Amino acid sequence: MYDVNAVRADFPILSREVNGKPLVYLDNGASAQKPKVVIDAIAHAYSHEYSNVHRGLHYLSNVATEKYEGVRGKIAQFLNAASEDDIVMNSGTTEGINMVAYGWAMPQMEAGDEIILSVMEHHANIVPWHFLRERMGVKLVWVDVDSNDDLDPSSVIDAITPKTKLIAVTHLSNVLGTKVDIKTICSEAHAKGVPVLVDGSQAAVHMPVDVQDLGCDFYAITGHKLYGPSGSGAIYVHPDRMSEMRPFMGGGDMIREVHKDVITYNDPPMKFEAGTPGIVQTIGLGVALDYMMGLGMDNIASHEDILRDYARDRLDGLNWLNVQGQSATKAAIFSFTLSGAAHAHDISTVLDKKGVAVRAGHHCAQPLMEHMGVTATCRASFGLYNTKDEVDTLVDALELCHELFA
Amino acid sequence: MYDVNAVRADFPILSREVNGKPLVYLDNGASAQKPKVVIDAIAHAYSHEYSNVHRGLHYLSNVATEKYEGVRGKIAQFLNAASEDDIVMNSGTTEGINMVAYGWAMPQMEAGDEIILSVMEHHANIVPWHFLRERMGVKLVWVDVDSNDDLDPSSVIDAITPKTKLIAVTHLSNVLGTKVDIKTICSEAHAKGVPVLVDGSQAAVHMPVDVQDLGCDFYAITGHKLYGPSGSGAIYVHPDRMSEMRPFMGGGDMIREVHKDVITYNDPPMKFEAGTPGIVQTIGLGVALDYMMGLGMDNIASHEDILRDYARDRLDGLNWLNVQGQSATKAAIFSFTLSGAAHAHDISTVLDKKGVAVRAGHHCAQPLMEHMGVTATCRASFGLYNTKDEVDTLVDALELCHELFA
Repeated sequence: MYDVNAVRADFPILSREVNGKPLVYLDNGASAQKPKVVIDAIAHAYSHEYSNVHRGLHYLSNVATEKYEGVRGKIAQFLNAASEDDIVMNSGTTEGINMVAYGWAMPQMEAGDEIILSVMEHHANIVPWHFLRERMGVKLVWVDVDSNDDLDPSSVIDAITPKTKLIAVTHLSNVLGTKVDIKTICSEAHAKGVPVLVDGSQAAVHMPVDVQDLGCDFYAITGHKLYGPSGSGAIYVHPDRMSEMRPFMGGGDMIREVHKDVITYNDPPMKFEAGTPGIVQTIGLGVALDYMMGLGMDNIASHEDILRDYARDRLDGLNWLNVQGQSATKAAIFSFTLSGAAHAHDISTVLDKKGVAVRAGHHCAQPLMEHMGVTATCRASFGLYNTKDEVDTLVDALELCHELFA
Repeated sequence: MYDVNAVRADFPILSREVNGKPLVYLDNGASAQKPKVVIDAIAHAYSHEYSNVHRGLHYLSNVATEKYEGVRGKIAQFLNAASEDDIVMNSGTTEGINMVAYGWAMPQMEAGDEIILSVMEHHANIVPWHFLRERMGVKLVWVDVDSNDDLDPSSVIDAITPKTKLIAVTHLSNVLGTKVDIKTICSEAHAKGVPVLVDGSQAAVHMPVDVQDLGCDFYAITGHKLYGPSGSGAIYVHPDRMSEMRPFMGGGDMIREVHKDVITYNDPPMKFEAGTPGIVQTIGLGVALDYMMGLGMDNIASHEDILRDYARDRLDGLNWLNVQGQSATKAAIFSFTLSGAAHAHDISTVLDKKGVAVRAGHHCAQPLMEHMGVTATCRASFGLYNTKDEVDTLVDALELCHELFA
C-alpha cells in the first residue's frame, strides 16, 4: 500500500508555506524536491567522508571512491542495463545528449545526413542537433504527433531514408505527458540500421525503465528530476555505440597516458568522464535512486496514474480550460491555457498566491508550442509525493483565475 | 590576526580520525574540505528553497534564481572581473577549458596553427588541446621550466610564431607549486596578438586573483578546490573573446528561439550555460567564496606562506627526501620522492596509517613527470586550515617511511 503521507514526510520542503499557504509543488517536470535521506547523505559526505576520487590512496579517498563508483551499479540497476560499464555518469541529460552529439554523431555524420526528431522534443534534445545542422549541414527531419497527441511509431519509421543516421526522441513529453512506444521504434529502426537516442529525463521519473527491453542505443537521465541533487545524471550507452564514440570532454581520469605528442585514452565508460566528477551529487543521486526503487517504480507509477485520472476528471470539468495533451496513456503532466485574455504568466502568478507552484512558459519545447499554436502554457506536473487534495487546491486556484480574468 | 584554530573549527571533517589518528588532510591540491557554512547552505537550499531556476514565476523558483544568479557577482568580485557578464558558471575547470577548446579554439584554428603550453600543465589544460591536434592538426608547442623550476615568461614569448593562436598556461603548478608571472606573459603575448588562457584551479585557492590586472583572456576556476561543492566552477572570459566564441553545449537557457529549421542564441554569458545548471552547488560555491573573502585572500596567502616556509625548512632537513619544485616563490605544495626503493604509493599508504592524507601518482601532470624523470610522486598540499603541527606530523610519518623502506 503506497502511503503518500509517509512519503511526504520524507521531503522537508513539503511542510513549508508559500505566501501564507501550504506549498503545493506541481513543478516536478522542471525539477523535483529531495527527500531527507538525499540531503543528509550530502551533508554526511562533506562532513565525514569527503575527498577527491580515483586518484588517491588514502582512507578518505578510498571511501569517497567506493561510494561514488557504487552509484554506477545503482544506475545500471535502475535502468536495467546489462552492465554498469554501459553507464556514463555526468551532470544531467543536457551533458549526456551533447556528449552523443559531439562524441558519436559529429564524427559519424556528413552534410546531407538526416536526424529524425519528434515535434515534442525538449530543447536539450534539439539544440545539440541544430549544432550539427548549422556546422555540418546535417538535416533535421521532424515528425508530428497525431490528433490524439500520440507519436505513432510508424510515422517515425516512415521518415527513415537512406540518409537517416539517428532517431532522437523523448520517452515522455514534458508538456503533453505523452508516452512514446520506444520499443517498437527501436526494433523497427534497428531493422533499417538506424540507432535510437532516448531522452529519458521525464520518463525515468514516472515509470520503470528497462533499456534492454526497450532496445535503445542511448538513454539519458537527469538526477535533479529523479529526486536527486542538481548537477547529477547519467546516460546509458549500448556497447556497440560506446565503441564508436570518441571522447567528448578532455581532462583527468579519461586518459591512460598523456605525452607531449601522443595521448591514449582510458577504457569506457571512464573514457567519457573527464575531470573531477560531481562526487557528492552523484552519491546523492545513488541515494535518490535507492529511495525510488525502495518505494517501487511500479508503485510510484500506479500512484501517479490515480492522480492523473483524478486530475484529468477535475480539469475536464472546467469548460474554460484547454488542456494540451490528450493521449490516453499520458503521464500526470497537465499543460493548459485559459480561454480568454489570461496569459500563462498571469495564471502562474495567481496560483502562486495560493501556494500552488506551476511553471509558465514554453517549457523548453518551442517547436511543440508552434505546433500547438501557442507561445506559452501553464504546466502542472505531478510527482510521487503529490495528492488528490493538491489537485483540488489547483482546481480551486484555477477557478479564482477564471473569475479574475473572465 | 589569522586564527587557524577558529578556522579549523569551521570544518566538520577536520575533527574526525583516520586509522585511529587525528586526520591530517594534506590533499588539498586534489580537493579541499568544506566549511560548515557551505554544507548548511546546501542543506538549507534543498530543505527550504529548492526549485529549478530562470524559467519559473513561482515563489520558490524566484528565490532559487535570485540565490543562484547572485553567485555570478560573487565570482566576478572574487576574480575582480569588470562585469559579472564576463563570468560563465559551470561544473569546474575541465568544463571551462573544454568550452574554450570547442567553442573558441576549434572554429578559430586550422591545421598547422600552434598552441603554447608549459610542461607543468594539468591534464585538464592539455587533453582538450590534444583533441585539436588529433582532430585538426593543430601543433602543441611545449615550454619547459628553468633549472629553478620557474617558468620564465620570455621562454613562453620566445615560443610565439606567426602560427601561434593561443597560450594556455597554469597560474600555479599543482605539483611544483611554482607561480607563473601571468601578467608579463599576457602583456607581451597581447603585443604579438596572442590570447592567453589561464588555468587558475590552484592559484585562486591560495592567493588574490585580479583578472583585470593580469590581463588574461580566459581564467578558469573550480569550486571543489575553493572549499566549495563538487561540480561547481566558473570561467572568466574577456568580452572580446566571449563575442568570438560559439556555443559549446546546447540545451535550455542558452537559446533565444528554437524553431524547426532555425535557432537563435541568448546573450552571453547565458549563451554558454546549457540546461538546468548545478543550482545548489553553485549556491554553495558562493558561500565558499564569501567564506574565503571573509578571511581575506591576503591573510590566507600569508598563513600559507608561513606554512610553506616551515614545511620547506623541515623537509629540507630530511636528506633522503627529494622535493620537486624549488621555485623561491612557490606555494605550499610539496611533491617529493624518497631515495631508495619506496614507491610513492607505498609512502602514501604508510602516511595514511598515521592519519596523514597525501596524494600519490602522476597528479594528472604526466608531461611534467616525464620532464622530472619520475613516474609518480607523493604530494602534500596545504590549505587555509593546515598548521605547523601538521607539518611536524607529516615529517614524523616520513621518518617512519624512511626507516621502513631504508
